[in-house]
Amino acid sequence: MTMAARKALVQVAKEFGTPAYVYDLDVVRARLADLARVFAPHFSVSYALKANPNPTLLASLAGQVALADASSVAEVHRSTEAGFPADRVTFSGPAKRPRELRDAISACIGGLVLESVREAAEANRIAAELHVRQDVILRINPATSPRHFGVSFSGKASQFGVDEEELSTAIERIQSLNNLKLTGFHIYSGTNSLNAQAVSDNFAIFIRIFRRACQLAELRPAKLIFGSGFGIPYLASEAELDIDAIGRLVIPSIAEMRSEPVFADTMFVLEMGRWIVGPAGWLLTSVVAEKLSRAVDFRMCDAGFNNHLAACGMMGTVIRRNWRIENVSNPDAAMHRYTLVGPLCTSIDVLASDIELPEVRVDDTLAIANSGAYGLTASPTRFISHPEPAEIVLIDGAARDATERGSPAEKPVVRDQHRGCR
Amino acid sequence: MTMAARKALVQVAKEFGTPAYVYDLDVVRARLADLARVFAPHFSVSYALKANPNPTLLASLAGQVALADASSVAEVHRSTEAGFPADRVTFSGPAKRPRELRDAISACIGGLVLESVREAAEANRIAAELHVRQDVILRINPATSPRHFGVSFSGKASQFGVDEEELSTAIERIQSLNNLKLTGFHIYSGTNSLNAQAVSDNFAIFIRIFRRACQLAELRPAKLIFGSGFGIPYLASEAELDIDAIGRLVIPSIAEMRSEPVFADTMFVLEMGRWIVGPAGWLLTSVVAEKLSRAVDFRMCDAGFNNHLAACGMMGTVIRRNWRIENVSNPDAAMHRYTLVGPLCTSIDVLASDIELPEVRVDDTLAIANSGAYGLTASPTRFISHPEPAEIVLIDGAARDATERGSPAEKPVVRDQHRGCR
Repeated sequence: MTMAARKALVQVAKEFGTPAYVYDLDVVRARLADLARVFAPHFSVSYALKANPNPTLLASLAGQVALADASSVAEVHRSTEAGFPADRVTFSGPAKRPRELRDAISACIGGLVLESVREAAEANRIAAELHVRQDVILRINPATSPRHFGVSFSGKASQFGVDEEELSTAIERIQSLNNLKLTGFHIYSGTNSLNAQAVSDNFAIFIRIFRRACQLAELRPAKLIFGSGFGIPYLASEAELDIDAIGRLVIPSIAEMRSEPVFADTMFVLEMGRWIVGPAGWLLTSVVAEKLSRAVDFRMCDAGFNNHLAACGMMGTVIRRNWRIENVSNPDAAMHRYTLVGPLCTSIDVLASDIELPEVRVDDTLAIANSGAYGLTASPTRFISHPEPAEIVLIDGAARDATERGSPAEKPVVRDQHRGCR
Repeated sequence: MTMAARKALVQVAKEFGTPAYVYDLDVVRARLADLARVFAPHFSVSYALKANPNPTLLASLAGQVALADASSVAEVHRSTEAGFPADRVTFSGPAKRPRELRDAISACIGGLVLESVREAAEANRIAAELHVRQDVILRINPATSPRHFGVSFSGKASQFGVDEEELSTAIERIQSLNNLKLTGFHIYSGTNSLNAQAVSDNFAIFIRIFRRACQLAELRPAKLIFGSGFGIPYLASEAELDIDAIGRLVIPSIAEMRSEPVFADTMFVLEMGRWIVGPAGWLLTSVVAEKLSRAVDFRMCDAGFNNHLAACGMMGTVIRRNWRIENVSNPDAAMHRYTLVGPLCTSIDVLASDIELPEVRVDDTLAIANSGAYGLTASPTRFISHPEPAEIVLIDGAARDATERGSPAEKPVVRDQHRGCR
């Protein structure tokens, strides 16, 4: 981190207090520019809201990415409220409630991502009641498992999509439904890879399946959505994913497809959340107390797994490993080893163990890197009723409070009346 | 579960919708009666709010247990708002912010649990500013680790309490502080044990340490607090903890202590949360969809780890194992094997795998047992913006909405003016 970036974070902690999430929208912009440099015009970008649905962040993204992918109907509404036109919103999710399907179709979303043939029938019934024909995208669960992914979904039984083996039957069934229009396909089979070759190999699987699916459906697809699986280096030992290398490996195949008539009007989509916003975010926490216990130097912080479940190794990881953490208020001091814990009355509330940091004093501000994705909303903030973290955005270096007040999930979402889509 | 209990849960799902947490206050009452039968008059009970801070539940407990243990200053206020007199509230926690210390002391709490000598100095400074003398309880981190506990805190370096080896120095330092009054000791060294002998062995360690501490302090203690570590059987393979056996093993030592002058006015306290409320709670979830994928029969539910982190094996457990789950709406059907998943767009959102249940159909209501503790507030309910679960209490069999609206953590907590304690 640069000295200026450190100073900005210390200033945020002073002005807004801690714990506080900070999202640097300039970093988001730079990362999207990097994606465009490598992948435009071959790929458009879809932002997966589940990574971070903060409204201020979303509003900024609405002007920068082609699509928004929502994983709940509340995320559909967050997308449109942030400025995404409804026809640029897709809606995924393995357990869409009938009310959610009705609401999303009423909202004129551009693509309903179907997770099963059963869901297709349900959506068709609702679309018929609403007298509309809904564009749908079929999600496919590949028979092949990708290598070198943090978490892989495919090559096994899954709640997501139709199994590749069932593709022909599924397409036939969906195309027989009068109130749905099959417009494309979607695959997302693994997450958080740092290996360019693995991403490229996985995309080769997608391309093979997408080609076959379009043949089976006799379809000139409007959208082919590649769940990117682009990872970010959480641990000090990990290196950045080389997206230039991915570009060199993948773009020739995409360029070739785009030259074929069947794909002439196709939007090739990179869907991702973590890679775009993860590195743009920090969780700032203050050191509240210190203690030496049996030769271990503890620093107690005002944020624990209540505020950052993933950083505490409790979100899908078997073994907790130290994330990248900086002492932004005392960066030049001599290095020491610490165990960093949160404020919770449980021994599992550990932010880092045996981590080397410049001397950490009470009232210092620590910054946990890579906290822009799967941070605040993915954490049990109500646990033990500690204060909710603030959310601060940096725009052109200036800090602004972007904390969401109230519980957004409590908003009523039912809008039964279909008001006519463009 | 009895037929009547099943019917009550199905009725709650119908009336209030799902996902919904249900807390049966009659079960809580029965469990407290069981504790009293075994441990009264030797032990009093302190309820640890972190297990479940629901206000309606707390109000019921206020009339039934001797003390409330808060782990944040917001929990202190929850206790008093629910009807606990402030002098029956203790306040624990490894990272108490100075503002929290000030606020808790201003609120006239009965016992500030000190986690370190440093914290004692800080509390003394604040008590002096407020012109009061605060009753404090010193938490001790034993040198010995207990056996057969789900999670053990002691015998190693810890953020909690003063190390047993430092006890003499710590007591001397604390007793030299004019605005603190040392009134007792606290040990909580392990959680969720199902082994009566292990609990008893652990209590024998506590008793040895408490005796030594009282000698060192030349103290007739007002309170000796035993973090009980009483566990509940989450897995079908586990058996109930035999509290009668604990009584037989432990009470003779306590009775002996109580006959000694030094302990004549001592309140011996069993502190616990999970054991009291865990088995009184259920999370109700509806089945939204079904799918057969590669020979695995999936049922997609409207609750996932967003609503119940612990049941999904993501709260301190290395391997997820199936909790006790019942199909309360179709209990008598033929048994089948299922994988139960939640509504989240991630493959780690698994409630149970390869679990045997009476045939599970779409719209059935499933009940996840042992959900009264570390349920709603310990889960990332904002993740992917799905609806917040309701909280329903059953009192004399009647259901009542006890959902907490708004974010309680946002309440302002600073009350700098000390208004005089009794």
